[in-house]
Parts: sequence; structure tokens; C-alpha cells
Amino acid sequence: MEPNTSGNMQHDDDDDNDQCLEIATMEVHKVVPPPRRSTFEKLKTRLKETFFPDDPLRQFKGQPVKKKLILGAQYIFPILEWGPNYSLKLFKSDIVSGLTIASLAIPQGISYAKLANLPAIVGLYSSFVPPLVYAVLGSSRDLAVGPVSIASLILGSMLRQEVSPTKDPLLFLQLAFTSTFFAGLFQASLGFLRLGFIIDFLSKATLIGFMAGAAIIVSLQQLQALLGITHFTKQMGLVPVLTSVFHNTNEWSWQTILVGFCFLVFLLLARHVSMRRAKLFWVSAGSPLVCVILSTLVVFAFKAQHHGISIIGKLQEGLNPPSWNMLLFRGSHLGLVVKTGLVTGIISLTQEGIAVGRTFAALKNYQVDGNKEMMAIGIMNIVGSSTSCYVTTGAFSRSAVNHNAGAKTAVSNVVMSVTVMVTLLFLMPLFQYTPNVVLGAIIVTAVIGLIDIPAAYQIWKIDKYDFLVMSCAFLGVIFISVQEGLAIAVGISIFKIILQITRPKTVMLGNIPGTDIYRNIHHYKDAMRIPGFLILSIEAPINFANSAYLKERILRWIEEHEAEVDFRKQSSLRFVILEMSAVSAIDTNGVSFFEDFRKAMEKKGLVLVNPLAEVIEKLQRSNVAGDFRTPDSLYLTVGEAVASLSSTIKTQSSNHV
Amino acid sequence: MEPNTSGNMQHDDDDDNDQCLEIATMEVHKVVPPPRRSTFEKLKTRLKETFFPDDPLRQFKGQPVKKKLILGAQYIFPILEWGPNYSLKLFKSDIVSGLTIASLAIPQGISYAKLANLPAIVGLYSSFVPPLVYAVLGSSRDLAVGPVSIASLILGSMLRQEVSPTKDPLLFLQLAFTSTFFAGLFQASLGFLRLGFIIDFLSKATLIGFMAGAAIIVSLQQLQALLGITHFTKQMGLVPVLTSVFHNTNEWSWQTILVGFCFLVFLLLARHVSMRRAKLFWVSAGSPLVCVILSTLVVFAFKAQHHGISIIGKLQEGLNPPSWNMLLFRGSHLGLVVKTGLVTGIISLTQEGIAVGRTFAALKNYQVDGNKEMMAIGIMNIVGSSTSCYVTTGAFSRSAVNHNAGAKTAVSNVVMSVTVMVTLLFLMPLFQYTPNVVLGAIIVTAVIGLIDIPAAYQIWKIDKYDFLVMSCAFLGVIFISVQEGLAIAVGISIFKIILQITRPKTVMLGNIPGTDIYRNIHHYKDAMRIPGFLILSIEAPINFANSAYLKERILRWIEEHEAEVDFRKQSSLRFVILEMSAVSAIDTNGVSFFEDFRKAMEKKGLVLVNPLAEVIEKLQRSNVAGDFRTPDSLYLTVGEAVASLSSTIKTQSSNHV
Repeated sequence: MEPNTSGNMQHDDDDDNDQCLEIATMEVHKVVPPPRRSTFEKLKTRLKETFFPDDPLRQFKGQPVKKKLILGAQYIFPILEWGPNYSLKLFKSDIVSGLTIASLAIPQGISYAKLANLPAIVGLYSSFVPPLVYAVLGSSRDLAVGPVSIASLILGSMLRQEVSPTKDPLLFLQLAFTSTFFAGLFQASLGFLRLGFIIDFLSKATLIGFMAGAAIIVSLQQLQALLGITHFTKQMGLVPVLTSVFHNTNEWSWQTILVGFCFLVFLLLARHVSMRRAKLFWVSAGSPLVCVILSTLVVFAFKAQHHGISIIGKLQEGLNPPSWNMLLFRGSHLGLVVKTGLVTGIISLTQEGIAVGRTFAALKNYQVDGNKEMMAIGIMNIVGSSTSCYVTTGAFSRSAVNHNAGAKTAVSNVVMSVTVMVTLLFLMPLFQYTPNVVLGAIIVTAVIGLIDIPAAYQIWKIDKYDFLVMSCAFLGVIFISVQEGLAIAVGISIFKIILQITRPKTVMLGNIPGTDIYRNIHHYKDAMRIPGFLILSIEAPINFANSAYLKERILRWIEEHEAEVDFRKQSSLRFVILEMSAVSAIDTNGVSFFEDFRKAMEKKGLVLVNPLAEVIEKLQRSNVAGDFRTPDSLYLTVGEAVASLSSTIKTQSSNHV
Repeated sequence: MEPNTSGNMQHDDDDDNDQCLEIATMEVHKVVPPPRRSTFEKLKTRLKETFFPDDPLRQFKGQPVKKKLILGAQYIFPILEWGPNYSLKLFKSDIVSGLTIASLAIPQGISYAKLANLPAIVGLYSSFVPPLVYAVLGSSRDLAVGPVSIASLILGSMLRQEVSPTKDPLLFLQLAFTSTFFAGLFQASLGFLRLGFIIDFLSKATLIGFMAGAAIIVSLQQLQALLGITHFTKQMGLVPVLTSVFHNTNEWSWQTILVGFCFLVFLLLARHVSMRRAKLFWVSAGSPLVCVILSTLVVFAFKAQHHGISIIGKLQEGLNPPSWNMLLFRGSHLGLVVKTGLVTGIISLTQEGIAVGRTFAALKNYQVDGNKEMMAIGIMNIVGSSTSCYVTTGAFSRSAVNHNAGAKTAVSNVVMSVTVMVTLLFLMPLFQYTPNVVLGAIIVTAVIGLIDIPAAYQIWKIDKYDFLVMSCAFLGVIFISVQEGLAIAVGISIFKIILQITRPKTVMLGNIPGTDIYRNIHHYKDAMRIPGFLILSIEAPINFANSAYLKERILRWIEEHEAEVDFRKQSSLRFVILEMSAVSAIDTNGVSFFEDFRKAMEKKGLVLVNPLAEVIEKLQRSNVAGDFRTPDSLYLTVGEAVASLSSTIKTQSSNHV
């Protein structure tokens, strides 16, 4: 070992002659087995890599006990981390942003609750307790917590399969709270068990398709409010809703349509302005509240409720009543409730929970621990379910407003929560005359941002298969159902991965002239074959799902190569070199693959280049490694293998002479 | 491009000076994008690699039409390939092997039919028609076709869930034939649709565990015959069978036990002899028939049927009656029948069909096309189902006997078939007095070979996770049910693959002193880090399931590296080099991974080494490639990247001076 060699990389020009000397002696470097480790050690490493890739406890290492306790408390309650340093200056920022998101949260809360077929007041309840819980437990400084459109839609539509919200509103409410409880339990367990990676299975393509489909479904539901229809279908799909809309044209109310159109245009314009200039974020942030106030005044002034415009009606006053006695853990609807909890829990984590937190954390350069965040959101929902709240999470649009309005800490959530509390205590009668049509317009404006056409085009450009996944999610949601559309897209995504594993690539390598470098000859056109050698690179772990395929495919490579060599009358194939750098793992079927292959190749030399640690170990433990222990069947680089084996050929042919 | 460079590999010693010259100039080789291909071309290649890895039609290429027709006919009917050259010499070999396997097929046929709860005669029918069909369509020369133990067990136990074979024997028989039809249809479709890889999902570990479990279940069922019990449980599991056996000790018949014990010892001894010396294969091959004849004579002579030994009883004479009118394609049992067909179809392909054919083909150095073979076996079962046969395939033990007895072509199957025909026509009355206990002993001896303890030990040595899979299959089959045990094992195998993808390895590379080679520093202890560089190799395709993890993990690598550098007061981290040789594919999430990562690394240099064709293409199509198009962020080898970037550092520092 020469300690100065790594150093010579920094002033290489001087040392070129030394390097040349070394290459001239053509030293062949040995493939060595990796250092021995016990099964237990390996299992430990593996489990750590699987469940603790971010090593969340590393800050605890080597600290005194007292410090550890403080760090532990801060780990569980991030508020202890930033709380002590909280200042009036930060509070000024937080109060502005808190009031801004409150102005968005109040109308959206009422609207989304209606989307979930729940009483409007539940939407406000859900904007009061969960933000307080999150302020204590959450580690994102920008996340604005509250009900969101997609989770509301899914909750409402899944529960409506079994219970009618109009005929049996109490039972429906109980099921909604119980689903919220299970959603929270599921989220917290995922985080606690470090299984956060499950949400990664919803790929970007799946989510873009799903969100766009869900936005359309949500918008279609708003046609009832926007057109003033009283008899509306209870189904969600594109076809039944449009059928229902056009079969009830006699119910369309021109007053409602007019009001709805005006406010929709206003809201969309406000949105457009804010999107053009980030500094004008407050235009779209304030517009829903302006709409609610304006429309309520108009209705009140003209007594429009008597002219075909439906209104919210009287709302209860007061803070969240306890609801733990409303959780139903038995009975015939338990299965539905658990399933609804699962789906809404995962969806709200995926789109609007963790991802949103991470996005803003990246902007401000702080870390959000995904698993910890899941626990925070989960506990928030469990608490919420016993205080009359339904599923909440960090909403993207509101978090963006929060960020733009200058939020510094989770105190902005507290400010929002207090504002909602004041509303709940004193301002509820004001909403009595708010027309439903405005709520519909607010929802449509909110969800329209979920349809991301540039992203869809980008996916089309990059990966056609992902585009297929996206289309299936989109069409599935629109034409079948929200859950099934999602399931189909996830299934297709996973199928692609399994197909990739079942059919790994093998590529033929050639020498790039004048170097020791070997690359894919179908990619690097100047790479040249070496007569007498077939150099193949296997680009995947070898396991039960692909060992049969690989054997077949490699034998075909050999056969084709020989046919070509015959045709061109070149020197016949002597060595098959398998470049194994990309074979990160093998299993027992993989070991058999080498056994079988070794047998099939008896007449030719089979050479392995750069087998990785796990592969060497497993081949060693079977009896196969012995076959490969002969000096000329294991090499560290393709270049060395070719050089060394070429000299063997030469020696042999000179012996023949 | 220098055409003589690849040539110099064969006489490298002379050219070392030239090589040195080239290295001394330190040329940096460019990463070039792969040649352009249209989406359609890529799709075509991909589909070909997925469904036609063996390129089955390559022999047709460039042939005249007439030749193509002949080749086509030979492709569909392999008999046309070897038939014309068939000679008397081959026939002599085939007649010996044919008679040998017939002597095994007749007692096994009767026994396995009883295992499937079918009339004994159906076992003989199934040894008559399917071998003839296979002789025409099959491409293996050694496969001995007929009923097999595991498929018989599964068929019998699955159908018995809904219909009792004793109370409603006709319906049971109808369901058995219909299941056979579906098994055949399913097998033929798998082959025709080139989906043969589905059977690869039953890994070696799964199969070893499953087979051992099934062998125990089958043996347990034989306790009824071996102990002479009349009231036996209808369940299959270990627990109910043993309970039933020990609750009915009063029914145990010592005469039966004595006879059974004697013949079992005899059969096991014969098996032992044959296993020791392959030349004595005929000892175990002939022993079942000897047992049947001997025991029948004994029973007949001593009228033992009146002394507690149960006998087969009168069997029908004559050839297979047609049974197409017995196939039930409607009614309440259709679901069960389809499921049974699926499971028996797959199982008989996996263990005893394709694998067996391939094993012997490898010994004699000819090819067996898996998909074609599936079609042959499938058609054989479809034909069988309409001629009173149940599921058949190539049995391993009988094929081994066939091979050892010197079978040259599928004519040995024809000889066996004719022998069975003669038996069916004239010899059936002889079996009337055959005791059931001997059939039980024959089955136990046949299935005991399925318990492969050395293979299980080998798996334990090589791969602990595979051992877990095997144990689950084994215990699942024994304690739960045959189908569920199999399903659990397949689920766990696939879970492992998905886990591997979700948690790909990233390893840190170091320079092997005195070379340009970079390898895992935790594997090659002499590999050294280069100050200022962090070189990581990503060992898996990057996709939605792992992009979040990879980002987190790599950021942790960087953080740890920086902490260590600070601690050792070394020069700070300047470049992060990602070695991408093992990243065979990326999707849209993978592209976003690079976008995000690029942003996160703004202050440091992010360098990609040897991105493969697909990766370059996709990065190009997004806007990310632009970021990497700067001259110092894409390199062909780690060595070149380090050398080139080191000089940048040097230049910068000298400028500072």
C-alpha cells in the first residue's frame, strides 16, 4: 500500500512516469473476499439501512445523559427547540401569516366539510384543534394545517357507499370521526414503525394523474351548487354526474348561475394575479373571504334566499364538543371505516403532508424527518377524532400562502387557530346567509390548481410508461372510482418494477480504443470488440425472478456471437467475461445460475469481473466459488482480465507452434 | 478511432509504451448520448427482450419459403424433426426404456389416482393418452409423462373442499376433468402468450419448502392405507390427520401394518440401492411392480381380504371412454374448478414439467424451449380432459428412470403408452386383489425423494432470507393448506425483491493505490479516499420506490463525510461523484431526484460518472441534462473525473496564491 498514491491525484502531471511504470509491469489486482461479518451484524446493518436510513438518533451519540434528555424532549416536541428562542420579531411575522391563512381557512373549512358531506361547522372545528396539536409536535415551520379537498372527497364518497349523510347524518358523522381516528392511527403507526417508505409507492406520475382526476370529480360535484340543482346524483363518476346535470336542466337556477359565474371569474382572476407575481399572494389568499362576505351581504340585502339561491343556514355556535363517545369500534361498518381511514390517511400523507413540508423545508434549508412528521400528523388526527374534527393535514395551497406571507414558526398555525376560535365563538351567525354557490366556486378555484398540465407534458417527454401510469390513474378516478383508479395506477407502477427485475438488461461491452475502458458497444460507437472475447455486463441483481431468463439471454448472446464470428471468419470465442459491477445481490437461485452456467460453459472460459461483496460471499458459501477460484476466472477490471487472458491465448498458440 | 488498438490486446507487451504515451496526455473521454431511436423502435426492442428473449424464430430468418414451411411444421410438431431419422437402433433403446417406465407407471398411476380421490382406472387412462400426445408435440426426449403425486394431491384436496368424492363420485369426476381442462388451457395460454416467466416466481427456496411439505402431507394421507384405518379424516393438515390416526387406534389392523411395513422396507431398500449406483436404476424402477405382483399373489393365495387387508376391488376393462361431455363450464363449482386448474397447472409446470425437461436436455446438450413446452403440456392436458384423463405432466422420478434406461426419443413414451393400453385391455382383472396398503407404500417411497434436506442445508448456508421463505412454504403447507403455504412463500419472496428496490445500496468508493481503479472501501481495505472527494456508487435503478430514500441516504453520506473531515481537519469536501454504472434505468421520479439533488448540492460540485444510455436520454429530455452538460460534471470513469477535477482544484488554489 502506498500512502502517497491518493495524494498524487492532486498533482498528477509530475507522476505520470511512475504510473506508466506500474502499468508496464501489468500488475493484476486480486478480487478479495469482503471482511468477515457475522449474520447478526449483517442483519443489523440491513435493518438499519432499511428502517433508519436517516439515522435519526445520531445527534444523541456521545452526549451526556442530561443533554440526551433535552434532545429527546426536543425530538418529540419540536416546539421545545424553537420555543425558547422565540422573539417578538418572529411573532410579528407569524401574526400576519396566521391571519392570512385564517382568512383562507375559514371559507375553505366550510366548503371542504360540505364536500365530505359533513356539517359545515365540522370544517371549522377541524381548523381549530389540529393546528394547535401540530404547533407542538410538527417540525415544519410552514405547513398550514386543516382539512383538504382530496381527503374530504375520498372520505365523503367512501362512507356514502354504505350510509346516507342525509338520511342518517348522526351515523355518518360517527363514521367520519372513526375513520379519522383510524387514519391517524395508521399514519402514526407508519411513522413509528419507520414504514414511511410505503407512501413512496405512489409515484409522481400516479399522483399527478390521480390529483387531476380527483380535481375534476370534485369540480363536477360543485355543479350542484353552481347550477342550483336540488336533485343531484349521489354517484361520483363523470358519466352519472353529467347525466344527472343534463337530466335536471329544469332545476337550473339562473340567479345561482349568475352569482356563481361572477364569483368564479373573480376568484380565478385573483388566482391568476397571484400566480403571475408571488408578491401579490394576498390577492388570492384574501379573495375567498372577500367572496364570502360580499355574497353574504348581497343575499342578506336582497333576501336572495327567496329567489332560488340556497344558503348555508343557521350554524351552531361554540367550540368543538368532545366526540370520543362517537367513535364506533364495532358494528357492521367497521371494515368500511378502517378502509376509509387507510386510504384517506395515506393520501393525505402523500400529496399534502410530507411532500409539502419537505418542499418548504428545502427552501429554508432545514430538515423535516418524514417518519417523525407522520407521527405528528397521525397524533393530530387521533386527537382531532375525539374533538369533532375530521381528517386534516398540511394543505399545499394554504402552506404556500403561509410561506409567502412570511411565516417563521408554527405560531402562525396558533394564530390561525385562535382566529378560527373567535369565529366559532362569536361570528357564526354571520355565515347564515352565505350562499352555497360561493362555496362551490371557492372549491373549484382551490382544486383547479391540482390539474398540472405542464407536469403531465414533462412526464410524456421523459417516460412513456409513466405517462401510461398517469393516464390510468386519471381515467380510473374519473370513470371508475377514486380508490380503484389509485389502486390500478399503483398496480401498474409496481408491475413495471417487477418487469424490470424479471427482464434485466445485459449489454455487450467493447474497448474504447487507446484506453482500459470498456463500455456498451451499442451506446459508444467507437467501442470495439476484442477478438476471442465476449464481454457482457449484467445490469441487475440475479434472483429467482430472472435467473432463468438471464441464462437463456446470455446463451443467446454467445450463440449469436459465434454465428457472427463464423460468418466473418474471425478467431473463435475463447472467453466469456461477465462484468458484475451492477449485480448488487444474488439469492440461492442466483448461485444456481452460476453453477449451471459454469457447467454449460465448460469448453469456454467463464470469467467474472468485479463481483461485489455479497456476490463473492454467497458464491464462497456454496461450492461454486471454488470453480471460480482458479487464477484466471476472477478479475477486478475488464481491462486486466482481457490483458491477462490474451497473454494466455498467446502462450498457448506459441506452444502449439 | 484506431483500428489496431483492439488488436494490441493480443500482444500487449510490445505496445506498452504507446499506451503510456496516451495515458500521459491524460485524455478525458466524453460521455456521449446514445444513438437516437424512435419510441416505436425502443418499444419493439423492449417487447422482444421481454417476451422473446430466446428469439425462437431466428432459425426462420433468411430461409426460402419452402424451408420456412418445413421449419414451421417441425416447430409445432417436433416429431417431424427426429421422426424421419428414426432408426431400429434407436427403437431398441426406446423399447427397453419404455417398458421400464411402464412398469413404474402402472402402479404409480393407480396409486396417484387414489391420492386424487379418483377411481384407480383414471390413473391408467392418464398414462395412456397424454404420453401419445406428448410424443407428437413435446421437444424433450427424456420426459416420461403421466400423473404426478403433488398435482394429484392438490387436485384432490382442492376439489374435496366443495364436493365429496364418496358421496357424489360422478360430480367429483366431472370437476376433476374440468379442472384438467382449465389447467391445460392455462398452461397452453402461458406458453402461447410467452408468459412462461410467471412460473419463475416460484423460487428454488419456495419449491424446496413446498415440495417437502407436500411430501409430508401426501405421506400422512397414506397412513390410512398403511394402518388399515377405515374412518379417516377428510382434512389434509398435520394436526387433524395425526389426531384422526391416534383417535382410531382401535381400527389399526396388524395384518395391514405388517404387510405395509415389509413392502415399505423393500421399496426403500430398492430406492437406496439405485441411489447409490445409477447403473442399478432398474432395481427401484421395477420394485413397485414387483410389490404389486407379489402382494396381489399373497392376498389371492391367503384370501387375505377376509383378514383385514383392504383391496382395490374390481376394475373396469377397456380403453379411455370419451369425457368431453363431462366438462362442466357452468354451475356453482366453476370458480373452484378454474382455481384448481390454475394451481395444478402452474405447480405441474414448475416442479415437474419444464425444469425436468431442461435438466435432461442440458445433460444431452439439446435445447428445450420453455414456452413451446408449456404449449405442448397444455394441449396434452386439454386432450386428456376429454379422454377421461386428469392432470399429467413430466414426472421427475420417472423421467430419471427413462433417461437412465437409455431413452433416445419420445418413442419410449409411446412404448409405455402401448404397454398401458395392453394392461387396460387385458390385464385389469389381475389388479382386483392388489391390497391398498401396497399402493400406500409405493406413494410414500415416491414422495420421500421430494424432501431434499441437503438442498435445504445449502440454502441455509447461502441465504438466510431464502431459508425463511423455504420454512414458510414448508410450515404453511403442513399447518395451513397446500395453496396458502405456496401463496405465503411467493408473497415473501416478492416482498424481498421489492425491499431490495426500495432500499438500494449506496457504497463509498476509494482508489486502489497505484491504479485508476475505484472500489468499495468497506470491501477493499487498501482502497483509499481522495481528499476533497466523496465518491458514491448507486447500485440500483432509480425509481419512485427509492428516489426519496436515495436522496436521504446520500445526504447522510455527505453529512457524515463532512463531520469526519472536520474532525480530522482534512481539506473540505469539494466534489460529490456519483458512479452510475449500475443505474440501469430511471423514471420521472428518478429525474426529479437529480433535479432536487442538483439544487441541494449547489455549493459543491455534483459529478456523474458513466451514466448509461437510458439515464442520459431521460436526463436530456428533461431540462436536467443541461445542468450536467457543463464540461466538468459528466465523466466516463471515476479515475478521469478525479484526475480532471483535482487539476481544477489545483488551478483554483494556485490562482488564490
